[in-house]
Amino acid sequence: MSLLCQPCLNSRTLDAANREEYSRARLANLKLGGAQHPASPSTPTSSSGATQDAINADSVPSADLGLIGLAVMGQNLILNMADHGFTICAYNRTVSKVDQFLANEAKGTTIVGAKTDEEFISKLKSPRRIMLLVQAGAAVDGWIERLLPLLDSGDIIIDGGNSHFPDSNRRFQYLSSKGIRFVGSGVSGGEEGARYGPSIMPGGDEGAWPHIKEIFQGISAKSDGEPCCEWVGDEGAGHYVKMVHNGIEYGDMQLICEAYDIMKRGLGLSNKEIGDVFTKWNKGVLDSFLIEITRDIMYFNDEDNTPLVEKILDKAGQKGTGKWTAVNALDLGMPVTLIAEAVLSRCLSSIKDERAVASTKLEFVSRSPKFEGDKEQFLEDLEQALYASKIISYAQGFMLMQEAAKEYKWKLNKPSIALMWRGGCIIRSVFLKDITSAYRKEPELQNLLFDEFFNKAIHKAQPGWRDVVAKTALLGIPTPAFSSALGWFDGYRTKDLPANLLQAQRDYFGAHTFHIKPEFASEKYPVDTNIHVNWTGRGGNVSASTYQA
Amino acid sequence: MSLLCQPCLNSRTLDAANREEYSRARLANLKLGGAQHPASPSTPTSSSGATQDAINADSVPSADLGLIGLAVMGQNLILNMADHGFTICAYNRTVSKVDQFLANEAKGTTIVGAKTDEEFISKLKSPRRIMLLVQAGAAVDGWIERLLPLLDSGDIIIDGGNSHFPDSNRRFQYLSSKGIRFVGSGVSGGEEGARYGPSIMPGGDEGAWPHIKEIFQGISAKSDGEPCCEWVGDEGAGHYVKMVHNGIEYGDMQLICEAYDIMKRGLGLSNKEIGDVFTKWNKGVLDSFLIEITRDIMYFNDEDNTPLVEKILDKAGQKGTGKWTAVNALDLGMPVTLIAEAVLSRCLSSIKDERAVASTKLEFVSRSPKFEGDKEQFLEDLEQALYASKIISYAQGFMLMQEAAKEYKWKLNKPSIALMWRGGCIIRSVFLKDITSAYRKEPELQNLLFDEFFNKAIHKAQPGWRDVVAKTALLGIPTPAFSSALGWFDGYRTKDLPANLLQAQRDYFGAHTFHIKPEFASEKYPVDTNIHVNWTGRGGNVSASTYQA
Repeated sequence: MSLLCQPCLNSRTLDAANREEYSRARLANLKLGGAQHPASPSTPTSSSGATQDAINADSVPSADLGLIGLAVMGQNLILNMADHGFTICAYNRTVSKVDQFLANEAKGTTIVGAKTDEEFISKLKSPRRIMLLVQAGAAVDGWIERLLPLLDSGDIIIDGGNSHFPDSNRRFQYLSSKGIRFVGSGVSGGEEGARYGPSIMPGGDEGAWPHIKEIFQGISAKSDGEPCCEWVGDEGAGHYVKMVHNGIEYGDMQLICEAYDIMKRGLGLSNKEIGDVFTKWNKGVLDSFLIEITRDIMYFNDEDNTPLVEKILDKAGQKGTGKWTAVNALDLGMPVTLIAEAVLSRCLSSIKDERAVASTKLEFVSRSPKFEGDKEQFLEDLEQALYASKIISYAQGFMLMQEAAKEYKWKLNKPSIALMWRGGCIIRSVFLKDITSAYRKEPELQNLLFDEFFNKAIHKAQPGWRDVVAKTALLGIPTPAFSSALGWFDGYRTKDLPANLLQAQRDYFGAHTFHIKPEFASEKYPVDTNIHVNWTGRGGNVSASTYQA
Repeated sequence: MSLLCQPCLNSRTLDAANREEYSRARLANLKLGGAQHPASPSTPTSSSGATQDAINADSVPSADLGLIGLAVMGQNLILNMADHGFTICAYNRTVSKVDQFLANEAKGTTIVGAKTDEEFISKLKSPRRIMLLVQAGAAVDGWIERLLPLLDSGDIIIDGGNSHFPDSNRRFQYLSSKGIRFVGSGVSGGEEGARYGPSIMPGGDEGAWPHIKEIFQGISAKSDGEPCCEWVGDEGAGHYVKMVHNGIEYGDMQLICEAYDIMKRGLGLSNKEIGDVFTKWNKGVLDSFLIEITRDIMYFNDEDNTPLVEKILDKAGQKGTGKWTAVNALDLGMPVTLIAEAVLSRCLSSIKDERAVASTKLEFVSRSPKFEGDKEQFLEDLEQALYASKIISYAQGFMLMQEAAKEYKWKLNKPSIALMWRGGCIIRSVFLKDITSAYRKEPELQNLLFDEFFNKAIHKAQPGWRDVVAKTALLGIPTPAFSSALGWFDGYRTKDLPANLLQAQRDYFGAHTFHIKPEFASEKYPVDTNIHVNWTGRGGNVSASTYQA
């Protein structure tokens, strides 16, 4: 799988030695820990394989890959690929954008453009590699239909947008039947990531992988020298993993927002002071891209020298990937509480007008309305609360992927997934290095919390985490993510939950039956058997088959 | 709408005077507060209209309604209808079940049966009223297709199962096109409710309502003399309201389970003592069917004189309606956190084997590991915590229905919905009487928490509620529903949530843009405008259109 096939080797535009040297130079710029992007090169890289002549000659297929969709992600991916010595043909529904791009951002690079579908196709080497960076949904299907008549068997279509994984499953099946290799690939890292090294999560037709591996791993972020891009699995597995990534991103962001809110309203810290706390945290276990940019945001002042963030409307936007994760968790019956709370918190933020009314009608009442105690200790507790909640969130995310692999019959490689998320993407962090280690040590690890490192971490974090949840409840600061993480942890570590009562209730009112705990099994109550008890002395002996509680 | 049309009047098998007398007699048996079912009559009611002759004569249509599906709910609904003087024809896929039913439960009643589709149809008066109590999904469609060729224009098919509302939307459209009136009706109350007075929530073709109103309102539970059955709305609105009812039921049950767990493991109370607490609660603001049966369950001992509930396996079953509510909330972007947590808590309970492993690997660590303080005060706080969380859950549920009405263009009558839930169904309670009052006083009430009664209640409950959430966090008892309710309350009553930071983060890494708070609007940052800031000094000026966070 890792060897390049002949057509792919033929298509290389940089010889191996040159590329290695180039990679080493870029890697030297890598920042450890958080954002792992080299600085933007000030001059375009020279390309030994692709000559200016070839680029200008329309009749000779010269492009290693054609990319459709010149919004920020598409443009930046193209520039990134060009930096790495690949020749890319840029194309767009509104063709004028191609000219604009070539005349501005792409000026002086090896990037070529096309004005018609036919020209675009004619510029691509065989097998053609076409990457779509267009809006998820109908636009992807539209382009597939538009391209199909122009393609040859074995050509590759890569959807690099945030498509919903069932759509990628469907497109994989459909294009397979047409002889076209479909790849659904998650790409994370925002505009910066796309430009200087994103995390890339490709899945679909594994036969396509040797033809795109070099480009994808070439442009992806590197973490300790390893590319943050690996083959994920069949069908829509790439987009699935990206979806879970985004869900986890929702969770991480919500946790940081709660920490900021607690420091601001609970402790009365200034943005500068909060920025200092994030600066400190970014040197410890929480070292990550999101903590880093939060630090920057806290310090970012507007022209009037006050923090810009305080002027931003508190209605969170969302485009659906977090919701998809929560819905998928519900579908698979997996208790992914933190992401669900994060998504619902965004929903609550978005009804700002109603909240404004509510704020005049609902007063805060508490027996301990003011923070009392040691602020320094509390800030340490807060760091631990954030860390512990984050561990829970990732544990839940990996549980979900584990269940999905079972349900959809995909091979998902957990160490690779953690590695892909280590660099380049929005959730990149030192933390994911530890997760990678955990899964490399034990790929079949049942739960992240059972790994020695994280087990120690969660035990160490517990006392402070509990105090933060307890104090914020008394202080009236909402912490849906912190407290749902703690609630989940306390439920998960509990052998006997109160669901026995729930089962009794269901049997009482709906004859839904229950099972007996094995330790209480008897002739009357055999194990693994549906048991119905006549709790009231009334009612029939018929157990339910249509009523559903 | 409330007047009976001629065919319907013709079909009456009891004269009005008789029925009224019968109703009065039954109403006299009504229990106030919680379960509002009259006791089962020991003898079948006499029927002045339907003679034994008519019942025996296969050729004369004699049945007011035909019911298909003889599981517990179907059987009990038939017996209930027969009690109220309606002649019902029983039918079932497995025909032997019809004979069984007639020879046993239905013996000595006016109930008739059928052995073939043709016989079944021939026994129904016109317009035919056919009620399906079969498994939701394919079985409903199967029966519809099977019946369609045998029906006449204007006949009525009622789906009384727990169908998913989009299916009912579809069936309504499909059957309308065939001239058949479709009704999707939620029926709640479990086997007891079905037998002696359920809550019924019919929606769909309003033209069917006059033909079924008398039967449905006749057999439904009564609350202060008012039937717990009203026309809900168009298409699948009946099943939608039933779905939300079930979601709320999940929430109520989870809250009670958490209270039980806190008393058992947090305070060390015995089942008898916990039963006494529920007995007390059932006389106050929490007076409800679910508290009542929980009390019974706490007191219910097995043959060995120990509480049966403690032997029941703590893996909660679910059939999907709670999940549907949570998914619908996510789809509509409504923050229905309590139901979501309740559904996910069932999921967590169901991975019992993994929890058993986890219980050996994850230890409880806390700075306040033991309950300290006044138990009596804490029990009062717990009652208030349960009450407050319940108010939040219902507030969320009504917000969801309000949004659904907007989204699906349904008229939903909030006072009627509350009334329908007051009696007969699983969530019936004194509480719903107060909700009915609130919506009757102000049908366009924006939020339940803005009603004077509930506003007072939530303010009174706050201090104790906060203490319960805080203490259980320290005690290591999971309270996902209590604490998510509190977190939601604290978020809902907050004008400025930390989502401003979240929007800044999204703009930082993905150029997603943000809006400015109106009070900070300026020429540079106009109100209601997408604003993108170059937070890093790097990156382009292109804002995102394909990347989605």
